[in-house]
Amino acid sequence: MNHTYVIGVDFGTDSVRALLVNARTGETAGTHVHEYSRWKQGRYCNPATSQFRQHPLDYLEGLEASINGALANAPAEVRQQVVGISIDTTGSTPGPVDETGMPLALRPDFAENPNGMFILWKDHTANAEAEEINDLAHHWDTDYTKYVGGIYSSEWFWAKILRTLRVDAAVRQHAFSWVEHCDWMSAVLTGNTNPLTLRRSRCAAGHKALWHSEFEGLPSDEFLTRLDPLLDGLRDRLFTDTYTADLPMGKLSAEWAEKLGLPTSVVVGVGAFDAHMGAVGAEIEPYAFVRIIGTSTCDILMAPNEEIGHRLIRGICGQVDGSVAPGMLGLEAGQSAFGDVYAWFARLITGPVRELLGDEAADTMARQLIPHLSQQAAQLPVTENDPIALDWINGRRTPDANHTLKAALAGLSLGTDAVTVFKALVEATAFGSRSIVERFVQEGVPIRKVIAIGGVAKKSPFVMQTLADVLNKPIQVAQSDQACALGAAMFAAVAAGVHPSLEAAQQAMGSGFDAEYIPNPEQVAVYEKLYQKYRRLGAFIEKETVRPHSLAETL
Amino acid sequence: MNHTYVIGVDFGTDSVRALLVNARTGETAGTHVHEYSRWKQGRYCNPATSQFRQHPLDYLEGLEASINGALANAPAEVRQQVVGISIDTTGSTPGPVDETGMPLALRPDFAENPNGMFILWKDHTANAEAEEINDLAHHWDTDYTKYVGGIYSSEWFWAKILRTLRVDAAVRQHAFSWVEHCDWMSAVLTGNTNPLTLRRSRCAAGHKALWHSEFEGLPSDEFLTRLDPLLDGLRDRLFTDTYTADLPMGKLSAEWAEKLGLPTSVVVGVGAFDAHMGAVGAEIEPYAFVRIIGTSTCDILMAPNEEIGHRLIRGICGQVDGSVAPGMLGLEAGQSAFGDVYAWFARLITGPVRELLGDEAADTMARQLIPHLSQQAAQLPVTENDPIALDWINGRRTPDANHTLKAALAGLSLGTDAVTVFKALVEATAFGSRSIVERFVQEGVPIRKVIAIGGVAKKSPFVMQTLADVLNKPIQVAQSDQACALGAAMFAAVAAGVHPSLEAAQQAMGSGFDAEYIPNPEQVAVYEKLYQKYRRLGAFIEKETVRPHSLAETL
Repeated sequence: MNHTYVIGVDFGTDSVRALLVNARTGETAGTHVHEYSRWKQGRYCNPATSQFRQHPLDYLEGLEASINGALANAPAEVRQQVVGISIDTTGSTPGPVDETGMPLALRPDFAENPNGMFILWKDHTANAEAEEINDLAHHWDTDYTKYVGGIYSSEWFWAKILRTLRVDAAVRQHAFSWVEHCDWMSAVLTGNTNPLTLRRSRCAAGHKALWHSEFEGLPSDEFLTRLDPLLDGLRDRLFTDTYTADLPMGKLSAEWAEKLGLPTSVVVGVGAFDAHMGAVGAEIEPYAFVRIIGTSTCDILMAPNEEIGHRLIRGICGQVDGSVAPGMLGLEAGQSAFGDVYAWFARLITGPVRELLGDEAADTMARQLIPHLSQQAAQLPVTENDPIALDWINGRRTPDANHTLKAALAGLSLGTDAVTVFKALVEATAFGSRSIVERFVQEGVPIRKVIAIGGVAKKSPFVMQTLADVLNKPIQVAQSDQACALGAAMFAAVAAGVHPSLEAAQQAMGSGFDAEYIPNPEQVAVYEKLYQKYRRLGAFIEKETVRPHSLAETL
Repeated sequence: MNHTYVIGVDFGTDSVRALLVNARTGETAGTHVHEYSRWKQGRYCNPATSQFRQHPLDYLEGLEASINGALANAPAEVRQQVVGISIDTTGSTPGPVDETGMPLALRPDFAENPNGMFILWKDHTANAEAEEINDLAHHWDTDYTKYVGGIYSSEWFWAKILRTLRVDAAVRQHAFSWVEHCDWMSAVLTGNTNPLTLRRSRCAAGHKALWHSEFEGLPSDEFLTRLDPLLDGLRDRLFTDTYTADLPMGKLSAEWAEKLGLPTSVVVGVGAFDAHMGAVGAEIEPYAFVRIIGTSTCDILMAPNEEIGHRLIRGICGQVDGSVAPGMLGLEAGQSAFGDVYAWFARLITGPVRELLGDEAADTMARQLIPHLSQQAAQLPVTENDPIALDWINGRRTPDANHTLKAALAGLSLGTDAVTVFKALVEATAFGSRSIVERFVQEGVPIRKVIAIGGVAKKSPFVMQTLADVLNKPIQVAQSDQACALGAAMFAAVAAGVHPSLEAAQQAMGSGFDAEYIPNPEQVAVYEKLYQKYRRLGAFIEKETVRPHSLAETL
């Protein structure tokens, strides 16, 4: 049998998964998950200061182990039938590299220096730098934030670079350039990690590095130097061109071909972020809204460039030509907390249980509480006088990013029990979703379809039904529980020329949907009223919240 | 030894306590608590509809058992040295009586009819009637609510009478008049329960029945008949004169003298409410603010009539000449929930524990949770960015009664645990207290001293310290844990002529204070800011709350 295989590799926050897929049928031929060993020990991280770093050795070990693991149980001839590999990663997760593109932490003198490692997306050490970028951009001739919703985040590329250069003289001296995790990973497989020539991801550059064709690339040297003279000249050591992930980055190097037992003919695709490749794996189409729903959400919408490309969409996380599929505008949004809202409430309850009844009792509670509350909450009627919650327990990502916002609960009476509060929290996460959908619609981007992937989407029918009722839209849940890796495999199939387009790859390799939640018309009307209460409570809380100066001025 | 004894009898919600006191020294010579047996079984009540009734037999049995119990261990000669008995009760707790003053439920045909019983203070079946009274009063030439803060409550005399007459034809036919629990109880001891001649309590009449000297007694027949023709003529079968509790009602009847083994020379004082006599027992003085802090609070303030009597104090529960001490204006306020706020939170947590880990685990949690949270919360710093709560879990009693209001929590982040929420709830109850104190001050009634009694005051140092910090006033906690019964004993001593005045009785019989909470100056400044946030959150929630029509119009 002469089959054709591709491999999708998905670098998540805690682990990396490789998926070996038949490129013609989409059938899974092998999969393997590898957990990062240093990360698992909590090394190089300090949750108290929101410092989260990952060592490049974790990535290299994971790359080799996950791909070999996915191939391990396949017949020997399959290795020779692999034609493409594509990689997605978290982001913005940049790291400093030397002239050869080697991350500084791979040098002996930086081996234990967190500032020489990759700065994980959720690292918040650069809050002050993000504010400076916002301040300057909003007063500059060109507002460089205009394609990222008007607000630059401390989770992104420039803020992290600036912060690191300021605090670490050794990095300042030795960092020739900076790479995103997805760029470096793909480059590693090709053997060319030269920062000046490796093909940079359009997705990462456009959503996180303020790259745009209107700016002729990255923000100007003048802007960057005004931000801080430490950035002087860096622009030239980064990149001007960017590439969509359907394109090849190169071919597998001899070194990695040997490590993986694959031929050097394997095409390595350009990298991208997990959510964007995941959206493709979940069969995104124009005006479909794909939500990756877990502890937080990342939401991806795609629209034809010629129809939407001329608009500026306020308050979302960015609009980038080609960040999902070529020729399409990729729009990103998300909620800072979704499953995390429920987990917070579960911790609130189990905390005293642990202290008064011990670990065993608390662990039992922790395992059973959310399913129990979900089951009970699903039995409750929905009425206009129900308690209302705000979902901003970890700030707000979109619309209109504001990480200083906090959550709230209102309408509590003597009869309000844990189940009722849980229901209000679930509704709050759905209301947060609705406010994103409304923003898109207000800004002239219709949403024709909602697709969900991620842990919450697969495991929580109560949450998903509530979401469908609140959005008043049907929601399809993708069948695959590894949609990101599957999306990466689709990109690999296109980059390797197996399929002429992403659409064709989706058609051939897509695994479809296994659940659909249809709005209940009776709930819809009540939720309309509750949503208006949510909006008014949110407006009050926002007014009460002292915002960072630059944001207060701008919004 | 020729001692002089008095007995104070305190009818609470669940039980009645009698206290035998040496009238010269205040020394306790005996005490006994009797629980109402029918009430304990939940008879005649329906919490779902807030129907709470008490059978007069519970009262009669309790009166005899508690007094005999208090005397049981005293030497035989003490019974002959008793010179006075005074009684306080909950209120407004009115019941229908026949021409002889016998509660209808003591007739065989009404023995099981809840409408022939006493309607306990917390019965809320007359919500609609209270609204009608407000509506009419606010549009009448004389606003009869002006001395009760502008809002008549469903917990009060007229609302309960009107509701009962409307729903029960048998009561309509047989109720000649109505008495408050405190009036009937004292009258029973004298043997004269004739509703036309028994001495009615100034305290009950002024705070709950809209009695005022300016109105020449109760509201006019015209007003009452306009409210409902069912009330036509009732005014004449009630009362015109009222009496302060320092005055005698009569002497002990032969029947009760025999039941109690006391001489018929014993003077029986005019009755009053528990909070008002409790304030005296806690050594209230002019401009002292006495708070009875338990599941809810009842707050009593006393000021010289000539200094404050000409003012109308907006939004409190009433201002009545002589309701506490003769010649003094007695002002009443309170919070609908205080300890109940903490109990609500404890139930929120223990509810799922009961369902997932069983009764034993939940009972352990229920016993230990509030002390545990208090101890931990006391260790937390107080900062401007702490979560904020509203204490309106059971509506708001004062300032500006509004039972439709609900509680809220704001400022919640991923790090907010149960201890932090508990601290916010404790602070919220203290902020609710402060808003009452501020109202008095704004209305020209200075508060020179704060005294606390009740379960929370005695048992929760963390709560009391927080309250002192938030009020920025020292708080003294009365030594006696039966201040209401002690206050009743002081009234008995004055009514019987042992002491020339309440002040003299307090001087001789008072038991002083056993704790004082001094504001911590560092917390005071932070609480000032948090209190402003509480006020703004409250204003928002109030604006969001749909009010009953008449209130929306008036306030």
